[in-house]
Amino acid sequence: MLLTSINNPQDLKKCSLPELYELAEEIRQFLVENLSKTGGHLAPNLGVVELTLALHYVFNSPVDKLIWDVGHQAYVHKILTGRREMFPTLRQYKGLCGFPKMSESPHDVWETGHSSTSLSAAMGMVAARDLKKEKNHVVAIIGDGALTGGMALEALNHIGHEDKDVIVVLNDNEMSIAPNVGALHNYLGKLRTTTNYRRAKEELEHLLKSIPAVGGRLAHFAERFKDSMKYLLVSGILFEELGFTYIGPIDGHNLELVLDTLKTAKQTKGPVLIHAITKKGKGYAPAEADSVKWHGIGTYKIESGDTPKSSPTYTSVFADTMMKLAEEDERIVAITPAMPAGSGLLKFGERFPDRLFDVGIAEQHACTFAAGLATQGLKPVFAVYSTFLQRAYDQLIHDVARQKLNVVFAVDRAGLVGADGETHQGVYDVAYMRAIPNMVIMAPKDENELRHMMKTAVEYDGPISYRYPRLAVRGVKLDEELKTLPIGKAEVVREGRGVAILSFGHVFELAEQAADLLAREGISPMLVNARFCKPLDVELLSRLAQEGYDLVTVEEGSASGGFGSAVLEFLAEAGYYHIRVQNIGIPDYFVEHGSVKEQRQEVGLTAEQIAVRVRSLMPVTKGVVEA
Amino acid sequence: MLLTSINNPQDLKKCSLPELYELAEEIRQFLVENLSKTGGHLAPNLGVVELTLALHYVFNSPVDKLIWDVGHQAYVHKILTGRREMFPTLRQYKGLCGFPKMSESPHDVWETGHSSTSLSAAMGMVAARDLKKEKNHVVAIIGDGALTGGMALEALNHIGHEDKDVIVVLNDNEMSIAPNVGALHNYLGKLRTTTNYRRAKEELEHLLKSIPAVGGRLAHFAERFKDSMKYLLVSGILFEELGFTYIGPIDGHNLELVLDTLKTAKQTKGPVLIHAITKKGKGYAPAEADSVKWHGIGTYKIESGDTPKSSPTYTSVFADTMMKLAEEDERIVAITPAMPAGSGLLKFGERFPDRLFDVGIAEQHACTFAAGLATQGLKPVFAVYSTFLQRAYDQLIHDVARQKLNVVFAVDRAGLVGADGETHQGVYDVAYMRAIPNMVIMAPKDENELRHMMKTAVEYDGPISYRYPRLAVRGVKLDEELKTLPIGKAEVVREGRGVAILSFGHVFELAEQAADLLAREGISPMLVNARFCKPLDVELLSRLAQEGYDLVTVEEGSASGGFGSAVLEFLAEAGYYHIRVQNIGIPDYFVEHGSVKEQRQEVGLTAEQIAVRVRSLMPVTKGVVEA
Repeated sequence: MLLTSINNPQDLKKCSLPELYELAEEIRQFLVENLSKTGGHLAPNLGVVELTLALHYVFNSPVDKLIWDVGHQAYVHKILTGRREMFPTLRQYKGLCGFPKMSESPHDVWETGHSSTSLSAAMGMVAARDLKKEKNHVVAIIGDGALTGGMALEALNHIGHEDKDVIVVLNDNEMSIAPNVGALHNYLGKLRTTTNYRRAKEELEHLLKSIPAVGGRLAHFAERFKDSMKYLLVSGILFEELGFTYIGPIDGHNLELVLDTLKTAKQTKGPVLIHAITKKGKGYAPAEADSVKWHGIGTYKIESGDTPKSSPTYTSVFADTMMKLAEEDERIVAITPAMPAGSGLLKFGERFPDRLFDVGIAEQHACTFAAGLATQGLKPVFAVYSTFLQRAYDQLIHDVARQKLNVVFAVDRAGLVGADGETHQGVYDVAYMRAIPNMVIMAPKDENELRHMMKTAVEYDGPISYRYPRLAVRGVKLDEELKTLPIGKAEVVREGRGVAILSFGHVFELAEQAADLLAREGISPMLVNARFCKPLDVELLSRLAQEGYDLVTVEEGSASGGFGSAVLEFLAEAGYYHIRVQNIGIPDYFVEHGSVKEQRQEVGLTAEQIAVRVRSLMPVTKGVVEA
Repeated sequence: MLLTSINNPQDLKKCSLPELYELAEEIRQFLVENLSKTGGHLAPNLGVVELTLALHYVFNSPVDKLIWDVGHQAYVHKILTGRREMFPTLRQYKGLCGFPKMSESPHDVWETGHSSTSLSAAMGMVAARDLKKEKNHVVAIIGDGALTGGMALEALNHIGHEDKDVIVVLNDNEMSIAPNVGALHNYLGKLRTTTNYRRAKEELEHLLKSIPAVGGRLAHFAERFKDSMKYLLVSGILFEELGFTYIGPIDGHNLELVLDTLKTAKQTKGPVLIHAITKKGKGYAPAEADSVKWHGIGTYKIESGDTPKSSPTYTSVFADTMMKLAEEDERIVAITPAMPAGSGLLKFGERFPDRLFDVGIAEQHACTFAAGLATQGLKPVFAVYSTFLQRAYDQLIHDVARQKLNVVFAVDRAGLVGADGETHQGVYDVAYMRAIPNMVIMAPKDENELRHMMKTAVEYDGPISYRYPRLAVRGVKLDEELKTLPIGKAEVVREGRGVAILSFGHVFELAEQAADLLAREGISPMLVNARFCKPLDVELLSRLAQEGYDLVTVEEGSASGGFGSAVLEFLAEAGYYHIRVQNIGIPDYFVEHGSVKEQRQEVGLTAEQIAVRVRSLMPVTKGVVEA
């Protein structure tokens, strides 16, 4: 096997073209075999095998900088930069990260996870290089889907303006989830010089008249001419007007062509854009046939492509309930930023094609678009992952909350997310929403309550959110009827003595287990399902304070500024100074990839830890107050 | 005066064309006169007089929806919709808002303040209209500057894709602060069909060869041809490929032309983009001559255009100190998202043209671009208003803090901002940054300390921020030498007894006044300048807790999740349950326009209120603990 002899990009450079083709074959095999056991982003990586080989062949990483947008397509890059043998640990606790990671290799010069950041990063590295008068190449590899993200478009604008040496490889795999891809074009400046514009028009008219060969059928010709010219000129002009030298489109699996193109780009001054057409899942039939399914995948059987049956998840309960709600209330519409499958909304879109809006990777627009819908009396449900809602934070504040519009934020992947790791942890949403006036912030204790919260949200008049995890459901009984929950009211699940466990959201499962553990020791904390972080159930909190309960708060979110913090603020404001509070949440660091169970263990978010905290307050609770 | 007879858009529709021209003249006079006394956004409004008249003449507001991007150019709209007589109260406490405001008029269908939101809002209203099978027009008016914002580009992409009836008026005033304006073009889909592309190319080549008249000088012709075709085809093609019908460019001050164009647009199916060229400040010579200065202005003398001398501000101290720091450390670079003047960085840009990056209205890109610079060992200072940093929140988390890059966030306009009101309040930054791992969050007690914090920030290795207000400086003495402050260490300014006032940031001025007030009553609280919200000075807090001090925290930021909340969290975590804390900050609602003094009075952020809180803790402090 040739691949075992490639331990860094230098080894690669000694290969002949036939050997590179052989390597491509071996890498595909390696990926299909390894990922069948670990899972991972198979299809995107199968699509960039030749591109990655060529990039490392032509450029001199890490002196030359390779920046992978989103980063889930960097497996081949990892294989070629000395990490081949770590693949059995891919996306596992303390194992190989599924995204570029500086601590793994000097060849990872930029970390990602979220999309559309590569062009900005590249521009930063290029500007720094030129200021420092250094010589190296900077190459960003970005997909056509990521290019619709607003920040990528902002970056294109800036790059074109600065006219520095930078290479963008547009990996156009025809599989962006959003059907349209935009390219930014700096041409208003030209249009402003209207004399130029008019002169051009006159020149063309003159030209057309001066062509005797086609004079007779001018009208028809002009029509056809216009279409042809479009394709020809637009291709180059768009990126070229932006300031780019445009090369393409080229077949991204034709190694020779890709090598030649990269060499040309390397020699070209100013910004260059290489438009490479690739196929997601290339070389593995099941992935070629259904690249959405095979984008990110769990374990599978190589021969058949069979994958284990998945259990019902919070997301699937969300999806089913959306259908039910939408049947009953025609004002309900759904918005997804390029996640129709991930959000579970595919079926909704089939049943209500006019009422599902997939706006592409465009969280900012998605949020304000929802606000626009809400101004007209509709009930938009913005289904978005906690970590991606960070992209729409200003829109949540400025457009939704400030105008007190009835947008429902269905915050999926809230809490620890497992194998995607630190870039995708959904642990800040409660903290960043809590400071915003008018927001209502809910979290259900289980999948049944999620359904009631969904009903509550569409009936509420104002901005409202509920968060739910990337987890299988608990398996509780689902009520026939959906209920509207009273805003700001918690649920006392078990009465108790001395200490109350206030649980916010799906970690109720852990709180309940802790209460069970403690019960065996004769300790009976009160068990409260908080339901609302904002508004807090101040009536219940006042009662608890007046009755002398100490409190343990539990949430799967940032302990800084989260639900527990809200409880502390209320107690201070109301003057309940004698209550002792212990907050359990995600501590102040970025939690790396692993299973959710391992991550919870690491951060101390377990039933046992909750029990420890309750015990720590228990023996002396009455002692202090009565002292 | 004709204007006094126009109390709503219906009155306008009775006017003849000459009367409309007369109205335009009167409106300009009205604006120049009124704003000379109140201040406001003069130049943008002088630029849209004819556009606004024509829009209200042709469309039927509020059934038809007019959406003003940014909204500072909606004064003419306000004049025409019954609010003329409120202009003496413009931007004043309880007076007319400087931006569209639903509560003022049914003609204000969308509120703004931040840029680039109008297209998303319009698309939402259009989608709702079509779902509800209603008939009305939706018109977004957006400037060329705002069009570079990522979310506007995201929206263009979506609008073109949906092919619904919507009208975009591109108000191209040639005065965008960013030199380049981008337009989004959906053409990758076409390029993918490479056979079409090749056929087009072949057809053109064939055509060129078939033109005998120009055969002899083909090379030269082809060159000229290419340029000409560009201007001709690009104009229409760009927006047309996006799905828009493009009309323009037209003279936005030619009322007749604008009226005709709007009427045409009204009849056109699908998305229409009208490209109108206007002049900022039109009709008032000083504003025409310097539209940057006259963009937003205070009071002025009409004849001369003279404005009162402005006092030194925190911003000007920031600007001077940036120069000093950059002289000493060539790694320092500055990034501004279209605010070179507002951020005070114009002089910096003159002195260090290679080291100031104005990236346009593009906060997301600005932040990650800074991160890219930091990876290469530079010390980027991202100068950004607190309220606009909300736009770069995900980038702050995902790109800067997670990678622990040395980006300095110079958070200007932090706290209450006065006349711009609720859309611009800089009150969430501490809360939204505090939950993010690796962040260091500082705020100086005065302009002298700001300078030391700036020095501290560029020397620190990791993400770090300092916030300062839109206020005149206190006028304290400036130290000769810039000092590096120890990270996470507060300053005890006055020792005291019983209660400690912990002040975070520029409100130290108020805390000091409160301490002075109390001193006259024989009450001597300790006075602490916290300096750091993250990391907290836990050593000092522990000492205070151990010595039995109760605490009053003061900050000009959201009380939810802010500095005071951090103090509560620490005390709970460390088990200092006996300490009583009162948090003073911005309460949980959006604070409207007025002077900062009035806003502070309203929210209880005054020396007197601080004193009240200290007194409330003072007499019984020891009582409770000893009970």
